[in-house]
Amino acid sequence: MFPKNCWYVAAWDHEVRRLHPMRRILLGAPVVLYRASDGSPVALEDRCCHRHAQLSRGRVRGDVIECAYHGLRFAPDGACVHIPSQEQIPPSARVRSYPVAEKHHWIWIWPGDPALADEGRIPDFGVMDHPDWTWRGETLQVAGNAMLAIENLMDLSHLPALHRTTLADTAIPDNDIPVEYRVEDDTIRVDRWALDTPVPPYFRLLAGFAPDARVDRWMNTIFTPPAFVRIDIGAAEAGSGAREGDRSKAVTTWNLNAVTPETESRSHYFWAQAQDFAGDDPSLSELDFALVHTAFEEDLAVIAGQQENLDLDPAAPRLNLAADRAGIQARRMIERMARAEG
Amino acid sequence: MFPKNCWYVAAWDHEVRRLHPMRRILLGAPVVLYRASDGSPVALEDRCCHRHAQLSRGRVRGDVIECAYHGLRFAPDGACVHIPSQEQIPPSARVRSYPVAEKHHWIWIWPGDPALADEGRIPDFGVMDHPDWTWRGETLQVAGNAMLAIENLMDLSHLPALHRTTLADTAIPDNDIPVEYRVEDDTIRVDRWALDTPVPPYFRLLAGFAPDARVDRWMNTIFTPPAFVRIDIGAAEAGSGAREGDRSKAVTTWNLNAVTPETESRSHYFWAQAQDFAGDDPSLSELDFALVHTAFEEDLAVIAGQQENLDLDPAAPRLNLAADRAGIQARRMIERMARAEG
Amino acid sequence: MFPKNCWYVAAWDHEVRRLHPMRRILLGAPVVLYRASDGSPVALEDRCCHRHAQLSRGRVRGDVIECAYHGLRFAPDGACVHIPSQEQIPPSARVRSYPVAEKHHWIWIWPGDPALADEGRIPDFGVMDHPDWTWRGETLQVAGNAMLAIENLMDLSHLPALHRTTLADTAIPDNDIPVEYRVEDDTIRVDRWALDTPVPPYFRLLAGFAPDARVDRWMNTIFTPPAFVRIDIGAAEAGSGAREGDRSKAVTTWNLNAVTPETESRSHYFWAQAQDFAGDDPSLSELDFALVHTAFEEDLAVIAGQQENLDLDPAAPRLNLAADRAGIQARRMIERMARAEG
Repeated sequence: MFPKNCWYVAAWDHEVRRLHPMRRILLGAPVVLYRASDGSPVALEDRCCHRHAQLSRGRVRGDVIECAYHGLRFAPDGACVHIPSQEQIPPSARVRSYPVAEKHHWIWIWPGDPALADEGRIPDFGVMDHPDWTWRGETLQVAGNAMLAIENLMDLSHLPALHRTTLADTAIPDNDIPVEYRVEDDTIRVDRWALDTPVPPYFRLLAGFAPDARVDRWMNTIFTPPAFVRIDIGAAEAGSGAREGDRSKAVTTWNLNAVTPETESRSHYFWAQAQDFAGDDPSLSELDFALVHTAFEEDLAVIAGQQENLDLDPAAPRLNLAADRAGIQARRMIERMARAEG
Repeated sequence: MFPKNCWYVAAWDHEVRRLHPMRRILLGAPVVLYRASDGSPVALEDRCCHRHAQLSRGRVRGDVIECAYHGLRFAPDGACVHIPSQEQIPPSARVRSYPVAEKHHWIWIWPGDPALADEGRIPDFGVMDHPDWTWRGETLQVAGNAMLAIENLMDLSHLPALHRTTLADTAIPDNDIPVEYRVEDDTIRVDRWALDTPVPPYFRLLAGFAPDARVDRWMNTIFTPPAFVRIDIGAAEAGSGAREGDRSKAVTTWNLNAVTPETESRSHYFWAQAQDFAGDDPSLSELDFALVHTAFEEDLAVIAGQQENLDLDPAAPRLNLAADRAGIQARRMIERMARAEG
Repeated sequence: MFPKNCWYVAAWDHEVRRLHPMRRILLGAPVVLYRASDGSPVALEDRCCHRHAQLSRGRVRGDVIECAYHGLRFAPDGACVHIPSQEQIPPSARVRSYPVAEKHHWIWIWPGDPALADEGRIPDFGVMDHPDWTWRGETLQVAGNAMLAIENLMDLSHLPALHRTTLADTAIPDNDIPVEYRVEDDTIRVDRWALDTPVPPYFRLLAGFAPDARVDRWMNTIFTPPAFVRIDIGAAEAGSGAREGDRSKAVTTWNLNAVTPETESRSHYFWAQAQDFAGDDPSLSELDFALVHTAFEEDLAVIAGQQENLDLDPAAPRLNLAADRAGIQARRMIERMARAEG
């Protein structure tokens, strides 16, 4: 269901190590991740072209990975460069090498046509690189199709119900305010602004607003296909011009998400929480991460339940609500991309 | 294979609680069971019509159940009565509501056409309601197709072999006595009477017959499709007229069984053991239950093994014996009902 | 994929016991193994012809096995000889009986046409019967198709890579010496001789060669379809004529292997290690067994990984190397046999 000619997150940078090759199933295919001697990440098919052994069981020697079974060695471009039992290396002796990039603390992989891979198309998660921001992230395993996780992120109407003891007060319900949807340059944007409102506990706790403060608040979602959701969440002194772009009296936390299909019924979920207000107090960043982590555990339980129901009846109909507009758009965009690849 | 326009047991009455909705897969469909504020049982599709979340993960509020994911609320009739993110409730916003009944300590569900549901068609397990009877029951999970469990119950010829250390002495083997089969009003009846015989240990133990007593004994099975087997088991002073209907010198224990398909390879099994002789000594009822429970564990192990073999070769032929007459009739009756539904 | 008109190993002799019938899935079919009162092995379909119960759950009485469910008894030829609930035994009341043989400490089974079973076709593993040899064996479970295990055994080029800390020094790499392949009487033979070489640690350790000794060494593999690999491994004083057949100055260890498919993705693996030099010191036999056992654990991990990759993409291409010649021949021989059976 997912397109292949696009970047996906394969791992956090710290998960990919020089001498400990890691197996990960990505879009149904086995991939081995390691780092070459210069530290650059390598992503190869985790299936030796000879007898299908998992290269990830082998050793990294210099830039190459050596199959544990017969000792064939493969260079980062996938070419076999050594066969212990014979001198001649057949031209077909190679495994698939995936275009790979390291950016914004993630290792990115391009599972489609390598000729089309362009690092310029990696979505911007630059707040994780910015010195004024603090952040923390993790990898979660989702027992459900990746689309279920993406729909979850595109739909903030579930916050008051599912996360009522965790994130509910960060929500800005659709029916309270005019929500602005727009599609720009192949991204979907959903802006929610609530002006001159009481400060919610989440921001009192994290950003030290006075209990009786009035704030302008926002939750602005940016979806970039096929699998990236960034949510700009913040509060500013009421009337200080945040909506017009002046964030001098504002605090912002970005919720950053990348979902990568593992199989039709499982996904890898990479996410981080970044703050512009926690620089002098790392415990605030930890607290923000912990709040969202707890909420995401609630999401994962629901998604696993959805997948169980899908497995019982894959064709059960779904009722769309007004709040699903962005999620439906995201699904269509993903399906259109996949269809265009044929 | 099983028909849908009929009642099945979904749960014991005590399993269905007011504020703790319970998920159960019944005939391949996810069902959530809870009680409305007046205590009446509710059975809804355990799959929100919106995004397929399991309603059983949510909360019961008054009569309605609220989806944990987005807070949609559903009334006992399956209609959505609240959507937090929008005012308008589309007419198609509903989940399936199953006709449900509470009778004889069981919660009954009608998985077929609701217009045909008629509580009058619930089979009679009234001994569990009668003040002169004591009983105890439980829910067991069967790792096998429901038909395997029904055949097991319809076939008393397995008692001497499988239950030789537990229930063997309650058996009245087919080849020792004339067995009377008859089909009455869509039920199958199999009567076994052994007259003027030594009292078996089972009844000496439970009902206090003298070791040298002579008794008239019986094991009379009543099958009601699709999945109910009641076995009237007893002993009376020899010649006291039990066979003619005079049970004044008799003790009786009813073995009461309801099997409900979960999937093609798993079943729910609800059963109880009821006695008319244990009123003044509850330990007798406990003992009878324990004896049969131990025997049923033996049955479940055999059934799981049958299912393993079925999974290896679903088309392996079966040899029918004379003692299988009632089981074969039951299977045909069930299949005929299912076929008639198309 | 595997032929049926041939012998396979079903069990070690000590695994098949008189009163403890054992279930084993062989070539996808359930088989129960036990011994008759004269000790002779019996292999029957582990599925009662009546209701598919597993006979292995029952009891052995004299020569017959009694089904735990209804007490039907089956003789070693598969014929039902007793039905508790009726006098008459229908002629179709029988389970499949497999031709079975006990030879070389293994219980052999013929899963195909019994009329073709001929004990003369059991391959020779007679070193396990010879008084001058010591040996030890075991049963391993392989989480992979049997062909993967056979290819593993037919391909000694994996020793230096996979077993570099265990058996690497026993290897004689293809590219160092001329390897002699020949097909004889439906067996594949691969002979490797290295003449006048330093003694490898494996033989110094096991056979007490001096550290500076020069030896003639060999690893000669004999494949007998469908699933038997015997490897003659040894070393002799250099120039003492071992290659010409004089083993008076030689030590030999046989690695003996039989692989039996369980299902398409699992196999039973029976193997032993036999020595002609350990008679006066059993610890040498234990040591040899332990070395190879450790190496086989390495093989099983690789094979399980291959199977995982096969499950992800059964059609992924395979690159054949020169060292695969014997493995490819073995695979073709097996496939040819299976095709010939239609």
